[in-house]
Amino acid sequence: MTDTTWVEGAAGSLFDLDNLPYGVFSRPGEQPRVGVRIGEHVLDLAPVAELASAEGQSAASGLAAAWRNPTLNAFMALGPEEWRAAREWIMEVLGNDVHVARTTLHLHPLTDVELHLPVEVGDYVDFYASEHHASNVGRMFRPDQEPLLPNWKHLPVGYHGRSGTVVVSGTDVVRPMGQRKAPTEERPAYGPSQRLDIEAELGFVVGVGSAMGERVATADFAQHTFGVVGLNDWSARDIQAWEYVPLGPFLGKSFATSISAWVTPMAALDAAWTELPGQDDPEVLDYLHVHGPAGLDIEVEVVLDGEVVTRPPYRTMYWSPAQMLAHTTVNGASIRTGDLWGSGTISGPERDQRGSLLELSWGGKEPFTVAGRERTFLEDGDEVTLRYTAPGTSGGRIALGEVTGRILPAH
Amino acid sequence: MTDTTWVEGAAGSLFDLDNLPYGVFSRPGEQPRVGVRIGEHVLDLAPVAELASAEGQSAASGLAAAWRNPTLNAFMALGPEEWRAAREWIMEVLGNDVHVARTTLHLHPLTDVELHLPVEVGDYVDFYASEHHASNVGRMFRPDQEPLLPNWKHLPVGYHGRSGTVVVSGTDVVRPMGQRKAPTEERPAYGPSQRLDIEAELGFVVGVGSAMGERVATADFAQHTFGVVGLNDWSARDIQAWEYVPLGPFLGKSFATSISAWVTPMAALDAAWTELPGQDDPEVLDYLHVHGPAGLDIEVEVVLDGEVVTRPPYRTMYWSPAQMLAHTTVNGASIRTGDLWGSGTISGPERDQRGSLLELSWGGKEPFTVAGRERTFLEDGDEVTLRYTAPGTSGGRIALGEVTGRILPAH
Repeated sequence: MTDTTWVEGAAGSLFDLDNLPYGVFSRPGEQPRVGVRIGEHVLDLAPVAELASAEGQSAASGLAAAWRNPTLNAFMALGPEEWRAAREWIMEVLGNDVHVARTTLHLHPLTDVELHLPVEVGDYVDFYASEHHASNVGRMFRPDQEPLLPNWKHLPVGYHGRSGTVVVSGTDVVRPMGQRKAPTEERPAYGPSQRLDIEAELGFVVGVGSAMGERVATADFAQHTFGVVGLNDWSARDIQAWEYVPLGPFLGKSFATSISAWVTPMAALDAAWTELPGQDDPEVLDYLHVHGPAGLDIEVEVVLDGEVVTRPPYRTMYWSPAQMLAHTTVNGASIRTGDLWGSGTISGPERDQRGSLLELSWGGKEPFTVAGRERTFLEDGDEVTLRYTAPGTSGGRIALGEVTGRILPAH
Repeated sequence: MTDTTWVEGAAGSLFDLDNLPYGVFSRPGEQPRVGVRIGEHVLDLAPVAELASAEGQSAASGLAAAWRNPTLNAFMALGPEEWRAAREWIMEVLGNDVHVARTTLHLHPLTDVELHLPVEVGDYVDFYASEHHASNVGRMFRPDQEPLLPNWKHLPVGYHGRSGTVVVSGTDVVRPMGQRKAPTEERPAYGPSQRLDIEAELGFVVGVGSAMGERVATADFAQHTFGVVGLNDWSARDIQAWEYVPLGPFLGKSFATSISAWVTPMAALDAAWTELPGQDDPEVLDYLHVHGPAGLDIEVEVVLDGEVVTRPPYRTMYWSPAQMLAHTTVNGASIRTGDLWGSGTISGPERDQRGSLLELSWGGKEPFTVAGRERTFLEDGDEVTLRYTAPGTSGGRIALGEVTGRILPAH
């Protein structure tokens, strides 16, 4: 096995052998199926695995059937042993040039394929795990109180979102209609959201579920978590502000949540683990304890109107993904293959590290400049792209799947 | 077609021809499939429809395939024309005694079958549509403020719940573990919930979905809504109280939501429609307007320890199901076959009409007596059953599916 691939243009890129994210693709007139990305190509996995299986490579035999599906769910349900075997086998196929002749036929340029929602999403939970984000929101909305609410450092605050409106990167987002009421107005008005926003997040995808009544310990994170996606939790701040008391966000979030077409397997992030910023005061309850590096050193860029407007660093997140998963199941709630959870908006301590326009423009009061124009919330026609990179296992960097979406006018 | 059935013991019962709820059943060693309830029997629909179809009854031809599935989803997705055709055909088969000989073979006593979760649930949304419930909760938790929050009469407040832990009636419920903190305590404690509660609700099941960007008008309720289920939204009040600010309930609700095994089609409730209590002050926004009787006259009984402890009347609900559906989609969020929404706790104006133990015991401060014992919240071993009846279309009453569940100790 080698560190780099024979696939043209991929060696040394952000999508070399140390990355290998999975997705679902189709060519015109063909059925969607699982592929793996290498450089600017996608490898059609099932036929290559079938061939290997026919030749007696038993590692590939169980995988071909799973990869013939239009989502990653069947593959993800196989579990960590199979994920590892699959990754090693793909590294051999794309790394050893004895496989060139038979594999090239199944390698398609990304420009020739359509990418689909990679996962059939079960439940979608969104957390609120950035101390800087939660503090910023607290300062804006409750200026005369402590920015963090009393529960915030004791548990990763989260809530369920709408799984039926999770869409793949590239899907247009129609500006939502709804009720909003400014504090100065007597009655709510109905119309297009005037404070449409992004939330730059990371999403985690469950591979192996758990039964009702079980709890997933923080130490068992890797047994259950298949990989990560880029995630934009589009938010209509005016709709949310009016509706969210006392049961939380509903229509302000449910119109669309975009995730990347590529799911980066946890194994590709082995070099990205880093210490959490600290949870000493208060100390967390036992079921939330983590040992060793539980945070992820992932850099995020938010691109608006062609310019990077902010660079939220994931390593500043207060709560770790393992804690979010342990908390989700501490009451005995089951998880399922395909469940998705978002980290919550990633915001660092600096202004140019804030992960939402709400924070960047301080509630719309402090416009920021993009491409020479003053901006606050999203305008029709805006295209937003979230990009993510992390240290790879071979010393370089890898890219996670990017998430892009364009705002269409309300109708 | 007749008004009553030839099935033994069913004529004049709460499950006569004017009811006909659908469910999913299996006999030992057989696959789960769709059935319809008549009296104390379930009719295995697919084989009877296949027979009819083979004889050229075209109404039955499309249905057999849908009914062979282990959930109602394929049947529900067929849409209102097919729902109507199916109901008429079943009424003929079970009403006209020319069908006795060929049908009896496929009629199984309920005691011989296992009932399964009838629906593969997409998104689950829970509303808060009872003015009496919302006011009671407001009075308990915010005694020095107006009981209803400012948004409450302008929109049906709702939030997403966990669809992966929706379970069928009869499933045991393990007391959840979690964090709780009384206002008098300095730090949260971890342990079994000490304030475990029920919420007596009605659930509505989506048959026909909508596309993202579409809005479902209140007038189109019947085009999309397949039927109703009984629903118990088990709630851990202490976990909920500590976690729910600012993003709403999460673990206090996500451990289990029980629904009835039987889904009553909307057609069986034609005689149950009634006027809403009134929405004149304030008037609702246009997209929430309803015309004619939009409420449902359904009686509910909550049975604890063998005694009826409360009788919440559904006709007292402020918001109608058509308004809840219109609100869910007003921002362009799509709905899917199998989506489920709960009405929120049904509470009437009287003490013995309150739909939760929280209200019945006024936050635990005013114990009530069941079977000679003082009670507040649920104890291990408690069995709770919700029963529902409504006026039928033939002048008598019909029963909706009941929901039962027993509390097992935390582990």
